[in-house]
Amino acid sequence: MSERPVLHEYAASGNCYKVRLTAALLGLPLERREYDILKGETRTPEFLANVNANGRIPVLQVGERFIPESNAACFYLADGSPLIPSDRFDRADMLRWMFFEQYNHEPNVATLRFWIAFVGEERLSEAQRAQMPAKRAAGDAALKLMDEHLATRAFFVGDRLGLADIALYAYTHVAEEGGFQLSRYPGVSAWLRRVEEQPGFVPMAA
Amino acid sequence: MSERPVLHEYAASGNCYKVRLTAALLGLPLERREYDILKGETRTPEFLANVNANGRIPVLQVGERFIPESNAACFYLADGSPLIPSDRFDRADMLRWMFFEQYNHEPNVATLRFWIAFVGEERLSEAQRAQMPAKRAAGDAALKLMDEHLATRAFFVGDRLGLADIALYAYTHVAEEGGFQLSRYPGVSAWLRRVEEQPGFVPMAA
Repeated sequence: MSERPVLHEYAASGNCYKVRLTAALLGLPLERREYDILKGETRTPEFLANVNANGRIPVLQVGERFIPESNAACFYLADGSPLIPSDRFDRADMLRWMFFEQYNHEPNVATLRFWIAFVGEERLSEAQRAQMPAKRAAGDAALKLMDEHLATRAFFVGDRLGLADIALYAYTHVAEEGGFQLSRYPGVSAWLRRVEEQPGFVPMAA
Repeated sequence: MSERPVLHEYAASGNCYKVRLTAALLGLPLERREYDILKGETRTPEFLANVNANGRIPVLQVGERFIPESNAACFYLADGSPLIPSDRFDRADMLRWMFFEQYNHEPNVATLRFWIAFVGEERLSEAQRAQMPAKRAAGDAALKLMDEHLATRAFFVGDRLGLADIALYAYTHVAEEGGFQLSRYPGVSAWLRRVEEQPGFVPMAA
């Protein structure tokens, strides 16, 4: 890459951490700009006009161009690297787990973490509170599916760590902040340790 | 591809249609196997054990291997074709719109269509009914974002149709079945017609 990409982020967001972890595992430097989502700093007219009309972080800036959506930003950074399998089936299978992450995992595991650990249960709306049991069940179903898949595998796709692992690690390793019990998922717990042993791994707080 | 892939599907699902539309635009034959999701045919022990432990369709079968997640299945079929941009930024930008589709569009536009046109409003649970206003607002926000993006572009990424257009076309063109008014989004409406004019295009009912 000819210039250093800029990550527009909120550091405590698992979606933002994915992009940092991808860059760290690849040894790529990133410039970081922090926004406080709890203060609405990604919904200002300036942010909506210049960074992301969708009002969300992370956004990866490459020169004057912007890539919203965490998993797309990871794909951009890792394109051509061993974090994306060179085999056609495995490449699609990697994306399968990344779409699973955004559809079945993040809206449940990450949302409950955000509601419980960041917003505070006492501040939730009635509509949010009504969704908690369904999100709890769906989050546990996602963790169970991961656990079964990992029972016979070291990583999600093929035999080495890739973007599917990074995407799923981000919110899984902090799932207990959302009230999930990781001890119920031994395959997931062992995989979390394997991800953390990778050369170049950086923790979320780094 | 050495053998004909098998699409495990429910034909009225936009997610399944994406895979058929991708195959049609590429001139690839697909074998189709139909499951009635309203009768729970994707939650049987056989389906969960042999096709997709997540109990969902579409699943693309390639030989003895299976790819769940509609957008991953489309990526598999289109890998190496002009439906995926060869430019690195554009490739990530395509994925950006596909993740947007699964996170911001499908859970709102497709879910309201399913609840209203397939389940029937009178059969919804209280918890589902309580989510309808938020899903209506979020679905309209997704359509508005698409409309603004399309105000100055023929297709979502670059200057030709690609997987981002296919992914977003699937549920947008039937959004009115979920109570959305497409006449409010002239950029989207014009783009729908451009997609339908592509050589090889097949309608959802084909």
